[in-house]
Amino acid sequence: MINSISHLGIAVKDLKSACEIYKKLLQSEPSEMEFVEEQKVNVIKFKVGESTIELLEGTSPDSPISKFIESRGEGIHHIAYESDNINSELKRLDEKGFELINKEPKTGSDNMQIAFVKPKSIGGILTEICQH
Amino acid sequence: MINSISHLGIAVKDLKSACEIYKKLLQSEPSEMEFVEEQKVNVIKFKVGESTIELLEGTSPDSPISKFIESRGEGIHHIAYESDNINSELKRLDEKGFELINKEPKTGSDNMQIAFVKPKSIGGILTEICQH
Repeated sequence: MINSISHLGIAVKDLKSACEIYKKLLQSEPSEMEFVEEQKVNVIKFKVGESTIELLEGTSPDSPISKFIESRGEGIHHIAYESDNINSELKRLDEKGFELINKEPKTGSDNMQIAFVKPKSIGGILTEICQH
Repeated sequence: MINSISHLGIAVKDLKSACEIYKKLLQSEPSEMEFVEEQKVNVIKFKVGESTIELLEGTSPDSPISKFIESRGEGIHHIAYESDNINSELKRLDEKGFELINKEPKTGSDNMQIAFVKPKSIGGILTEICQH
């Protein structure tokens, strides 16, 4: 079951300047920067109501975020939905015909369990299911 | 003050088929379709926690949504943040140097008061401030 929008992943070229923009926009202080080795990204998070804005900066040209920016420019990289049971949710989506990038959850930032659904299953939008 | 993510506007080519995908994804029933004349769009909404997924289909080639799809393909068109006072929020953002498309709120779907901030102010992302 999907209960909320967990976060929006936003691809940025320069984390420091993007962070200043979002501090002014949201009038709040972000989390400490976190490095997610598997994705080769630095992440800074802003809480907005029950959701989070995640600013993502690639730390290497072969990071998914760097590649995304190279092909599409800065912008929204993915929508993540919060589930109360990611394993049953992935099983359900698979049965419903959604094409999963990850059939089993993996560990993302903040020790979240995460899995991605292929964009072509959902109108071109990279979609993540996660569970805190 | 921004309190939450009000909604995500998602540009789709075919509202009916996108609606079927989101019904399966979110396991919920959408709103009735609404036509927003000023934007030349048909809108269908899915509630997800405190936020809403808005599926937007242009009804004319000169609709902003049709133009967006023509240049960028289907995908996330804008992020909308809910404010408890849109007028003071727009004044504050203007003073902070954000470039506003609408300096005064206008009426959007569901009689929301809405105003847009230029994408180049916010890392390429079309950003909306709204108040229900």
